[in-house]
Amino acid sequence: MQLLRIGAVGAEKPAVRAGDGAYVDVSDLVPDFDEAFFGSGGVERIAGPVAERLAAGQTQPLGDQRIGAPIARPHQILCIGLNYSDHAAETGQKPPAEPILFTKSPNTLIGPNDDVRIPRGSTKTDWEVELGIVIGRRTSYLDNVEQARDAIAGYVLVNDVSERAFQSERGGQWTKGKSAETFNPAGPWLVTPDEIPNVNNLDMWLDINGERRQTGNTRTMIFDAYFIVHYLSQFLVLEPGDLINTGTPPGVGLGMKPPTYLKPGDVMTLGIEHLGSARQQVVAPR
Amino acid sequence: MQLLRIGAVGAEKPAVRAGDGAYVDVSDLVPDFDEAFFGSGGVERIAGPVAERLAAGQTQPLGDQRIGAPIARPHQILCIGLNYSDHAAETGQKPPAEPILFTKSPNTLIGPNDDVRIPRGSTKTDWEVELGIVIGRRTSYLDNVEQARDAIAGYVLVNDVSERAFQSERGGQWTKGKSAETFNPAGPWLVTPDEIPNVNNLDMWLDINGERRQTGNTRTMIFDAYFIVHYLSQFLVLEPGDLINTGTPPGVGLGMKPPTYLKPGDVMTLGIEHLGSARQQVVAPR
Repeated sequence: MQLLRIGAVGAEKPAVRAGDGAYVDVSDLVPDFDEAFFGSGGVERIAGPVAERLAAGQTQPLGDQRIGAPIARPHQILCIGLNYSDHAAETGQKPPAEPILFTKSPNTLIGPNDDVRIPRGSTKTDWEVELGIVIGRRTSYLDNVEQARDAIAGYVLVNDVSERAFQSERGGQWTKGKSAETFNPAGPWLVTPDEIPNVNNLDMWLDINGERRQTGNTRTMIFDAYFIVHYLSQFLVLEPGDLINTGTPPGVGLGMKPPTYLKPGDVMTLGIEHLGSARQQVVAPR
Repeated sequence: MQLLRIGAVGAEKPAVRAGDGAYVDVSDLVPDFDEAFFGSGGVERIAGPVAERLAAGQTQPLGDQRIGAPIARPHQILCIGLNYSDHAAETGQKPPAEPILFTKSPNTLIGPNDDVRIPRGSTKTDWEVELGIVIGRRTSYLDNVEQARDAIAGYVLVNDVSERAFQSERGGQWTKGKSAETFNPAGPWLVTPDEIPNVNNLDMWLDINGERRQTGNTRTMIFDAYFIVHYLSQFLVLEPGDLINTGTPPGVGLGMKPPTYLKPGDVMTLGIEHLGSARQQVVAPR
């Protein structure tokens, strides 16, 4: 299934994608795609009714309705840093021996086509196309990497927007440059694992104003999706609906010569194979 | 007012303290002390009814009921590192030029007298008595430090439990050593600012097995409570009910010669002037 949330900011309704430009409304079955939904086997619970509605042709046109992030604001957004061997090289840093964990404020989450706002005082707002993992159940101390498969509800396209000066020049710890409002576009939809042939072989890309900036594939991840979930479960308890941004391939603004950052009016378009595409316009500080 | 939550884990009911060992039940007025409560002027809303109930003697004995954290699981737990000049010296690091921001998983929050569990594989679990700030309203881009006063719902005693090896020896970014389950005892109660004569002059202490380990006063904070709230509001949006741990004074296990860490059976007792005291027993990994 492909889960999406449709409607105005703060009033999104849960739906399931029914091919291009159509969806099945499930807002009468579940209030939202949130911690309670994922933690109570919600994906399995709606599968039957959705199949019936599809068979009965009970779909609706998406039209120009807004698409929100495909999950409600999660308990936490965890991020893995420098997780692509080719991106680590680009930043001039050695590939990490263990996953580097940092976080974003959960209220950075926005829809896939919403505006990204440059923070006040920013000079170095940057882009990062990433594979996002959504956790499907409360997860702690997994015994092995293989068990991580059962802990994952699905995958989503994300943009881990970053302010490099805030991240690295303002007194350490990356979260300071990762948490400004609008800094985590996600979607268009969450894709359940059964629809992804191999999560460790997905092409991904990001353009700025139509020019290709990032090209990558999840096969160059230093730590793959299953490794990451197993690893994190040794340090903290993952809750259903938690989002994990798994790192970005080469081609960020920081790595350009000279470094080049976002300005109001820029348009980011990005996509990952099997996960759809997104488009965010950059707007000035408020 | 002094807000507290009483009852079993996950079933705590909101209450207001009525002197030693007694409380006024407010669970018929508000569902919980959560984001919706703080964000909708909940503290002001219950003040009148609580005063009436106190005048009518409608209090109940606390007895041996469990006390939970005084706030529901927040949107985020933000922490300021190395924020006491005397603690920075103890760790051998220079006082920071700007607040160091890191985070803890929100699900680390537990009651003031609950057990603290050593994580699996831990060798360096450590204590940190801290002043916690609870945010009272959605807060972004405060114009000046003075405005921070209006953004604060109250203060709470916290223990920012830390695993030093996970924090500093496992690939950078402190959150990895700060987020194990049970790592954020808070309470016994949230005290509203009107009951604190001067938040920048509060004595604090922490004992391990009855021996004094930490002694401090918030006046040696490098960045005070108001400065921190104003500063953070420039980088991210604070939500009502968010918790900010503001740093610890000297005397952590990492700073002892030789360094000394927690083991199962140890008892931590801690307190801050005007904010009450707490007691946590350390238990073995599960």
